[in-house]
Order: sequence, then C-alpha cells, then structure tokens
Amino acid sequence: MSQIAEEMDLQVDVENQEELELARMRHSAAHVMAQAVLEMFPGAKLAIGPAIENGFYYDFDLPRSLTPDDLGKIEERMREIKQGAYPFERREVSREEALKLFADQPYKIEIIQDLPEDAVISTYTQDSFTDLCRGPHVDNTSQIGHFKLLNVAGAYWRGDEKRPMLQRIYGTSWRSEEELQDYLHRLEEAQRRDHRRLGRELDLFSVNEDIGAGLILWHPKGAMIRHLIERFETEEHLARGYQLVYTPHIASGDIYRKSGHLETYQENMYSPMDIEGAPYYLKPMNCPGHIMIYNSQVRSYRDLPIRLAELGTVYRYERSGTLHGMLRVRGFTQDDAHIFCRPDQLEDEIKGVLDLALYFARVFGYEYEAFLATRPEKSIGSDENWERATETLANALRNMGIPYEIDPGAGAFYGPKIDIKFLDSLGREWTGPTIQVDFNLPERFDATYVGEDGERHRVVMVHRTVLGSMERFVGGLIEHYAGAFPVWLAPVQAEVIPIADRHVPYAHEVAARLKEADLRVEVNDSNDRMQAKIRRAQLQRIPYMLVVGDKEAEAGTVAVRLRTNENLGAMPVDEFIALAKEMNDTKSLALTRAAE
Amino acid sequence: MSQIAEEMDLQVDVENQEELELARMRHSAAHVMAQAVLEMFPGAKLAIGPAIENGFYYDFDLPRSLTPDDLGKIEERMREIKQGAYPFERREVSREEALKLFADQPYKIEIIQDLPEDAVISTYTQDSFTDLCRGPHVDNTSQIGHFKLLNVAGAYWRGDEKRPMLQRIYGTSWRSEEELQDYLHRLEEAQRRDHRRLGRELDLFSVNEDIGAGLILWHPKGAMIRHLIERFETEEHLARGYQLVYTPHIASGDIYRKSGHLETYQENMYSPMDIEGAPYYLKPMNCPGHIMIYNSQVRSYRDLPIRLAELGTVYRYERSGTLHGMLRVRGFTQDDAHIFCRPDQLEDEIKGVLDLALYFARVFGYEYEAFLATRPEKSIGSDENWERATETLANALRNMGIPYEIDPGAGAFYGPKIDIKFLDSLGREWTGPTIQVDFNLPERFDATYVGEDGERHRVVMVHRTVLGSMERFVGGLIEHYAGAFPVWLAPVQAEVIPIADRHVPYAHEVAARLKEADLRVEVNDSNDRMQAKIRRAQLQRIPYMLVVGDKEAEAGTVAVRLRTNENLGAMPVDEFIALAKEMNDTKSLALTRAAE
Repeated sequence: MSQIAEEMDLQVDVENQEELELARMRHSAAHVMAQAVLEMFPGAKLAIGPAIENGFYYDFDLPRSLTPDDLGKIEERMREIKQGAYPFERREVSREEALKLFADQPYKIEIIQDLPEDAVISTYTQDSFTDLCRGPHVDNTSQIGHFKLLNVAGAYWRGDEKRPMLQRIYGTSWRSEEELQDYLHRLEEAQRRDHRRLGRELDLFSVNEDIGAGLILWHPKGAMIRHLIERFETEEHLARGYQLVYTPHIASGDIYRKSGHLETYQENMYSPMDIEGAPYYLKPMNCPGHIMIYNSQVRSYRDLPIRLAELGTVYRYERSGTLHGMLRVRGFTQDDAHIFCRPDQLEDEIKGVLDLALYFARVFGYEYEAFLATRPEKSIGSDENWERATETLANALRNMGIPYEIDPGAGAFYGPKIDIKFLDSLGREWTGPTIQVDFNLPERFDATYVGEDGERHRVVMVHRTVLGSMERFVGGLIEHYAGAFPVWLAPVQAEVIPIADRHVPYAHEVAARLKEADLRVEVNDSNDRMQAKIRRAQLQRIPYMLVVGDKEAEAGTVAVRLRTNENLGAMPVDEFIALAKEMNDTKSLALTRAAE
Repeated sequence: MSQIAEEMDLQVDVENQEELELARMRHSAAHVMAQAVLEMFPGAKLAIGPAIENGFYYDFDLPRSLTPDDLGKIEERMREIKQGAYPFERREVSREEALKLFADQPYKIEIIQDLPEDAVISTYTQDSFTDLCRGPHVDNTSQIGHFKLLNVAGAYWRGDEKRPMLQRIYGTSWRSEEELQDYLHRLEEAQRRDHRRLGRELDLFSVNEDIGAGLILWHPKGAMIRHLIERFETEEHLARGYQLVYTPHIASGDIYRKSGHLETYQENMYSPMDIEGAPYYLKPMNCPGHIMIYNSQVRSYRDLPIRLAELGTVYRYERSGTLHGMLRVRGFTQDDAHIFCRPDQLEDEIKGVLDLALYFARVFGYEYEAFLATRPEKSIGSDENWERATETLANALRNMGIPYEIDPGAGAFYGPKIDIKFLDSLGREWTGPTIQVDFNLPERFDATYVGEDGERHRVVMVHRTVLGSMERFVGGLIEHYAGAFPVWLAPVQAEVIPIADRHVPYAHEVAARLKEADLRVEVNDSNDRMQAKIRRAQLQRIPYMLVVGDKEAEAGTVAVRLRTNENLGAMPVDEFIALAKEMNDTKSLALTRAAE
C-alpha cells in the first residue's frame, strides 16, 4: 500500500462515488472503534486505522492481548457512540501543535515527523476522541453504517518485522443490516470453503516446509481429482485434434536468450544451475519447447493447423509473502497448448478454443465472463497485424454469440488476447481460459510454413490454456464445490457402512461389485457406531453412503444415503451401480436423476 | 580405459580363458591390419590397436582420409598375410633400443617415454611388421580368425581433443565364418533398429542443442506412444491398489540433507538454485516427497499397505560424453512407486510387484532374467534385518516360480533388491524392473505406524519401478520392435490410401468411421502414386494400409495391406474395424488373428 493511501487512511482502490462513500463510512467506523478502545485502555497507543475492502481495521499497542469478549464490549461501546450522533469535526493544525497534541502517541508522532515540510496537517474529532487524519469522514457517528468486528490479528508497525508487533482489529461495515448479514454469510461461506482448510480436512494436499514454500504435495485423494481432470482434459484435447508433446523442465540459457525470456521475464525465473559451464534454467513457460518441435520439420500449408498440447509443469518466482495455498504457488502445471496456423485459419482456431473453454466451464459448473484485451502502449508488431488479429478475436467471440467486454490496452506486448473469467458458486471471479495471439516468438524463432505458392510464410502462433494451472484450478474447484465434488471427481464415490460386525462380509461383497464397475469405493469396517460412520463419510463429502444391515444382506440391496442427508432408501446393488455410473459418466453435478 | 588396459592392448574385460583366447585373436588381427595399412601408406604413423568387445581397432595418422574402397584393399591384404601363417615373435628390448626402433613413430615414442623406468619393453613381429606390444598374441597370422573391417571413425590421440585427430579402423573377428556372419547380421539389425535413427525417421523425438544435451523433446508421435504406455501403466497401478501422488520437481536442500542425498548422491545432482537465500535442487529421486506424504498423517496398521505411485520426472547429472539418445539422458520420468507396509506384509507386496513386472514383460513381448542382489560390504542396517529381508525377497521369487540368480554384494547400501532384466528380440539385455527394500529412509524420517499394540513401529519401505524410465523404456521399445509398434501403441494405426483423386471423399468417410471407433487414422490424399503412398506408409511402420478405389467405394469395403507386405484382401469397413479393435484392445503383438 502506498504512502498516499496510508496518509489518506484509505487502503482500498476507489473508482467511483459509491465506493468513496463506502470508504468514508468505514474509515469513520475505524475512528469510533479507536475511541472505544482508548476508553477501555486509556494508555493505548494508536497506530493507523484505514478503510479496506469490505471494512476497516485499526492497529493498537495494548497492555494485553484482546479476547473475543473484548471485541463484544468494544462493539457495544461503538453502538452507543453511534447513537450519540457526534459530528466529525476537522481542524487544521501546525506541526508544533500536532506534535503537542499527540505527545503521548509515539506512532502518531512518527507519522507527523515523516510528513513533508509543507504538508497540511489535520485532525478529526468526534465526541471525546481526536485522531490525526486527512479524512474524509461522514458527518456524524450515526452514519458509520451497520458494522461488526470480525477478528484480531498481529501486525508489525509499518509492516516491518523489526518494529513492534501491534494488535489489529478488523471490522466490517455496510449501508444496511441486510448487506451486513449478506456479507457475513459470504464470509462464513468463504471460510467454510477455504481450500487450505478443506485440503487438510479431506487430505487432498499439503505444503511441507522441508520441501519448500509454494510447492504442492498432492496426496492420493487430491491426486485422484487431478488425475481425473487431466484424463478428461487429455481425451478431450485428443478428440479435438490436438497432439500431445512432452518437453523437459529445464533448458539451457541459449533458448531463453533467443526467446527473449532472459531479457523480459528473468525476474520471474529462478537462478540458473550450472551444467558443464553453461547456465540452465527451470522453464517458466512451455512455448520455447513447443516452437522447437514445430521447427524440427519443414511444415507445409497442408500440415496446418498443428496444435501441440502439454500438461507442462512450469516454475515461476513468487515472493514467499504472496504464496497462498494452491492458488499462488511456485510450481504449477498448465494445460498448455500452442496452435500454429495460417492467417486464414485463425478465426476457426479461436472458435475451437472458445468452444472447448465454454464446454469446460459447463462441465465444472462455472458461469463465465469474456474480455477482449487490446493493444497496450508498449508492444511489438505492425498496426495492420494488431488490427487484423484483434478483429479476428472479436469476430470469433461475436460469431460464437459470446458477450464480451473490451479491456483496453490489456493485451500482452506481443499480441491481443481473450481472457475468460470463471464465476464460482459464490459469484467470485477466477482466472479462466486465456487465448493469446503471439507476433513475437514466430519472428524470434523464424517459424514458417511453405505456402501453396512454394514460398515461406510466417506462421501464426496462439498460446492458450483452458484450466490455467492444475494447482489453481483444483484449489478453486475445492472452494467452488465446498469440497463436495461431483460424483465423477469424488476421490471416494461410495462408502459402504456395515451396521454391525456380522455385516462386514456383505459390505465387502458390495464393495467388490462396485469396484468391478470401476467405481471408487471404501468400506468402513471399523468398530465405530453407524451414526459415527455416517458422520465421518459426510464430513469427507463422500457422495453416497451405502448402509448395509440384516435386511440389505438378505435382500441383496443397499440403503442409499446422500451426503446431502437425503435418503434414497434401499435399492438392489445393480440399481445403485447404474445410478452412480450414470452420474459419473454424464459428469453430472447432481447425485440423483431426480435432482437434475 | 585404464593405463594397464592400454598397455596390454586389451580394452575388454576378460573373465575367463575363452574370452582371453578371443581377445588374443582379435588383438593379433589388429597387428595384421596395421601391417597392411603401413604397406599401403609407408609414412603412416601408428598409435594403438587394442582388442575390444567383439573385435579390435587400430588408430593411424595418415596422409589422407580412408575410403570404403581402402578398407576392401586392406582386408584383402590382411587375408594374404593370414594365409602366410607368419609367426608372432616376441622380443624384449631395452628402452634405448625401443626408442631407436620406433624413431619414426612419434606415438610409439610417447608411449615408451611414459612407461615406468623398470617396465619390461617388448615388441612383436610378424612377417615384415614389428609393433611395440606387451602381447599376448596367437602363434601365427593364420589364427587371426574370420574377420571383417567395419568402419572408420575419428579419434583423438589419447582421447584428448587438444591432441591430433587420428583415423580409427574398426574390425571384428570370430572363430568361425558362421559366428562372423551371425555377428554381422546382429550388427546390421542393431543399426537398422537404432532408436536415434528410427526416432528421426518416424518423427518420434529429438534433442535440441539450444535446449540442451540429454533433454528429450517428445514429438507428437513419440508422445502418443508414451501417453498410451502411461495410461496403461496408470490404470494397471490403480487396479492393483496403488494410489497416485504428484510431487514437485524442485525441493529445498533441507529435505536432501535429511534424506542423506546431499551427503551420498550430490555428484549426481545439479547445482542448487537460490530461492530467497535458500538452496533448492532439482529432484534426483521421488522418494523424499513420497515419504513426506506418508508422514503427513499418523498411520495405523489397518491403513497398510500404502502404495504411492507417481510418474515422477527426475534429473540426474550425466557427463555429456556419456549421453546416448533416449537411453542415457539428463532428465527422465520414472514409473516410480513406494510401498509402505508391515514386515508381515512384505512378501505379498514383493509378489504383487513381481506379478506386475512379469505382466508388463509379457505385454511388451520381452523375455526376462531375475537377479537377487545381496548385502554389499558398505551397508547400513542390522544383520537380522538384512537376512530377513533377503530371505523374504528370495521366498517371493521362489513362491512365484521365478528362476533367479544371486548377484552377491550387489544390493544397495540401504537394503537388498531384485533386479529384472528384459531381453529384447535381439537377445540384448535392458534394465527392467527393480524392487528395493530400504532400511535407511524410514529411519532418517522416522516413518512409523501404530500397531495393534498401540505402539509405534518402524514401517517397511520398498522402492520399485517397473518400466524404469519412460525415456529409456521407449528408446528400448523402438529397438525391440524396430519401430514397428504393435497396433495398440502405433501412433498411426491405419493409413487410408485413395487410388485416385475421385476416391478421396470415400477415403475420408472411411477415416471418419475409424476415428469414431477410437482408432488413430490418417488419409494420404496427396498427389503421390499409390505405390509411393504404400511405400511411405510401410516406412512409417503403419500397421494397416487401407487402399480404396472404385471397387471398394462401391462395395463399402477397404483392401487391407499389412506393413509386413501381407495382403488381407478387401473387407467391409466394420469387419476391419473389428479386427483392428481386437488387436488394439488385446494389446496383441500381431496384426491379424491368424498370425497369433
């Protein structure tokens, strides 16, 4: 966050009047919170208290750690101050006056001392409380909105781990109680769906500190989900005329010098290894390898399009502070492909990728939004090429009937692109498919084809991913489904639950028949009670629980319960297999035909 | 090759009397060849001429490059000398005498000067030719065997690229004409099957110097073969109760310090990258990641065995001089798995792996030999553990009825192992499955399970690969099949060949039906003549050629030719599809039912 944002006590991007109003309201709530805290701890030292996205915080230096109980009391006192409708009064003060006013507030003093000589210094006062602040604020404390304090976290003064650790109280504030409740609900949902928490609870993945931050270990259940997605992805690509390739994870500096990566992308690459005196790098992208395969033969116009696809694992540098579960990592596997085609084939190729992208969105249950990113200021390639390619992308979108927004100047320096955002079940945006025309690499590597005229022509190259990165995609899916994966992706599709010990043999018999039908099944033959077994299976989000007791063993049936708590009753094993297979094979997002 | 081997003029390991006789014969043939060359180029400077495996060579410094014609003439002259039955006469000479004798042979002079002060210096003479040589030799030139000169290659004097480049003539010599012809035939076969040549001709893979030596680029057709093998391999592992995992290609030095790799294996690892001040390494093995996943939970005796499988790509340092196509590379993908089990489960687990290994051998058409490698001198672990584990491996082999040889002291330092060699269609040995018990890593990482007694016990860990490395395995398969892959692995299974332009639409119709049936098919709709198209498809080792003309288009049939030149005649498209599907689905090594 910039100095200016800090001074303005606004740590949120404000793009329009409405957002400014919200920030003003939330920032005022922070002042009211500070007043309440100071009344509670008269010796409290105050640091800063900005508005942030969806709320506000304030950092305090306090004699003891805050408890949830404290938050309740602070909230209560804030409500009283709100009711008082005390006006926020601005006053401009001289530097000397300010230093005197905040003599017992060392963090404020430090802020004042860091202000430029000619800075206008102002304070805001409500009721008995005065804070150093540039504003703006609402008129009076009755306007601080419908608020709630959320939690306390540690935060270093000025983010510097050598400075004191302060206590940061987070709060949220909204214009109406309904908005507040809605936000709290979404927050709770997001926490419930947090892929790091679910990743642990469902034993999907881990990050191990001895192996390194940002490097994902896929445990068997997470790996099964990834394997199923990769198998589906690969089969779908083969069916659509892509050809698979594999390229190594390291390459000599020579290729990255030619590709320009060492010049323009080195800060995202890891430091080189030395192999017999030459520098070798972990690959940050798959394109150089693919273009080498394209260039390994003379290509004729009749050979095009050539679509080279790879589940290629790349490694890119991210600062450890920015790493986040599976969503922001240092190594990830892209469902990458590069299409080499003639200019007259470009629109059809783009349409083909869009069709694939929308198909995947549908299969995984995402809504989507499309953006056409146009020429940025710093870019290479002729005006004519840019216009023609951008127009081709737009035509493809239009002819496919896909609504899109223009994202002006957001193209890559080497060409225009289409970005598709997936919208998850909470309405949150996820990076989705990207389709980029590249004028750069075909020039750098002199990639051509022999035309019908017998002459060499520059080939058109398109970079594209659909799922993006397996890590981010699966991390997103965990949150999208809240861990309740559809049948085809569930690591365990059915759990057989024998009621008593004597039903264990029948349970294993049932399991064997499901396995025979290629269903993924477990038997819980532990000594736990049935209710505990059901509870465990539900917590594991296993789609089907097949309870078997005397009746079922005798009749050759299973009593089917869904993880949603719905009870389908007893059915013959074959009938259940047919149901599960249908849900699996159709990649249904539902567990039963009826619910479709 | 050691100084001693050079002095002895034997660059071949001699283990028994028979091999010594062969080496003596071949080394004598080298002398006869040197005589013939010296007569042809009286100014020739001679370097060294040892016996090698299957033959001999001699290095010469000559006024001009040798031609194939020259080799014929040299061979002819060698035959005359052979007929002369000139005795090989040994003479010991003083250093001064030797220096005088070889005054016009600078390489010999250098050898003499490098001999230790007290060395016995000897010469061997046959007919008019005398060479500096320690022997031994055959009695006379009639005993130099049935020989043939093979080729000429460049070789630096003493292997030093800063010294002169010499011409090395390779020859082979055998006790009988039959053995000679048999060897020449095998040589021709091996050359015909060379995976580097076939890799180029069939467009399977390449190595690109800008990307780096020993790093394989898998082109679409090679990648298809690999993909099919990986899919088969993965499905088979899942069916046999393995669980997939994925682990990153880099890891912090911390883990390799704990695992002991930095201590014992660093020379095979690449130099570290720096990530925020910590050294990170490309993984040379998958085990540390797998053991971290095992250790991520408390495991109960009821959870075991746990079999974690990964197609894990590892990177190991090889000197550039030792790299060889796909067979010796710097990065390769292992079909790796680690089994964690209780001691009482070990034998069954070993049997399970052996069953899988023999199944794979059968599917790919390999014969095999099994070896049990026992405790080496330098090793860790108690006598009792070694004995018990070695006995368990032996029991598994015996109880499976697998004949095996003991390889004494050839186990890893951390435990005994079973190595299985695959024998290819030329009878050559390939590294196959390996199954290794490991006493080391479970100790280092304190990997345990909670037993029925509620106590923690040390888990038994088994490393195993079946195919070994995808690179080496596919490289080997190319040579094993001489590029003529069985139907299920052929990148293109059928080529439709329209006789004339007017048959092209029907050809595409046929192709569409094959694709519909999940067969991999191409249409050759170029302007080439039919015979040329058939020739091309045969060179590409495409199993089935479907020729379509007027008759076929009318009758809805295809005329089926095999790449073996066999002609199956016309058959309805569905009948062909059924045949091809059957060969595909049964992973048949034959192209037709009849030939089975």
